[in-house]
Amino acid sequence: MTEAAAAPSDRTRVRRIAKNASYDSATLHAIIDAAYLCHIAIQDEQGAHCLPTACWRKGEYLYIHGSNGSRLLKRLMDADSCVTITHLDGLVLARSAFNHSMNYRSAMIYGRFERVDDDGKIAAMEAFMESLVPGRQAEVRPGSDKEYAATTVLRIALTEAACKIRGGGPNDDEEDMDWPAWAGVLPLKQVHLQPLPHPASTAATPEYVSRWSAE
Amino acid sequence: MTEAAAAPSDRTRVRRIAKNASYDSATLHAIIDAAYLCHIAIQDEQGAHCLPTACWRKGEYLYIHGSNGSRLLKRLMDADSCVTITHLDGLVLARSAFNHSMNYRSAMIYGRFERVDDDGKIAAMEAFMESLVPGRQAEVRPGSDKEYAATTVLRIALTEAACKIRGGGPNDDEEDMDWPAWAGVLPLKQVHLQPLPHPASTAATPEYVSRWSAE
Repeated sequence: MTEAAAAPSDRTRVRRIAKNASYDSATLHAIIDAAYLCHIAIQDEQGAHCLPTACWRKGEYLYIHGSNGSRLLKRLMDADSCVTITHLDGLVLARSAFNHSMNYRSAMIYGRFERVDDDGKIAAMEAFMESLVPGRQAEVRPGSDKEYAATTVLRIALTEAACKIRGGGPNDDEEDMDWPAWAGVLPLKQVHLQPLPHPASTAATPEYVSRWSAE
Repeated sequence: MTEAAAAPSDRTRVRRIAKNASYDSATLHAIIDAAYLCHIAIQDEQGAHCLPTACWRKGEYLYIHGSNGSRLLKRLMDADSCVTITHLDGLVLARSAFNHSMNYRSAMIYGRFERVDDDGKIAAMEAFMESLVPGRQAEVRPGSDKEYAATTVLRIALTEAACKIRGGGPNDDEEDMDWPAWAGVLPLKQVHLQPLPHPASTAATPEYVSRWSAE
């Protein structure tokens, strides 16, 4: 096993099964770019909250957005938080109950969210649309000043992050290798299903829609 | 729209798009039972953490497990936390950029985790196996006393919880209905792929494995 790059901070240093840890930005980018949403841990006077929200990446930042009225969005700028993305890739069936596991790719990002200013907001929201459905931005009715004014966009730097990945088959104890139980992986994958046009949609099917369920 | 049951507490009361909220246990159970993992927000002296971990349900509790050595598992018994499960069902493409959305089913559970005692631990871990791969428990090499002693099982009551579900097509503004952009849903689904037997696995393929990729 090669020595991995060092963790960027104490709270990102993976302690449990540290050989599965990775701190390089290519791995981090790939995990974020494969995600539509993240979960964010924050704390307020009512305790800890775990918020699911849509996310996207532009350069070395992860972006989220929400309504100006959101109390929790405001709270994200007042204290550090932790953003986690997890892709589940399969159930790992070992010969012993104890060695069962899951295959996954996960990333944890620590830091403080900052508000994206008005100049950056439109570009950030357009990058979001482009990440979801490339090419659609030019077709939709663009956001009005009022709609943009009601929207807050926040970003967090990707500087303090750790990834953890488990892949491959089961790791059984040597003495269990002859135990007569099926061993292997039951894979899981998030896939695209057939698009569902709105009944009143009269527009021709764009390329990003016809391509969707082939991806 | 019918009046939904009341939120069990202030911190579970859904404020944003409250018509998508649900507080009934059948909805909560269905969201948990469809999940392999959850994210948990907790706080320690290093700030907030968002932990991904496997979960399962037995009656009116959500269970997790981990190694005795885990600092964060210990921390879960010292303070309230928030457990969130999110299933993403699709991208909702509206005629205007602003009205784009996502379809999802999510649950948030608040409370304090408690340790499952030694008597309950084996039954809880067997329920976990049964929830993942029904019928497999009888085939694997059972956990030894040493393995169980190294494992902590925690549970949290499902009494303080809220679900939020968005389904269906886009909700465009009336004045955008003639805008010439495709409108509809691009559905997403987590599916089972073909099982991957371990090269050294000699056991016959059990029914729960051959059934996997047909589900």
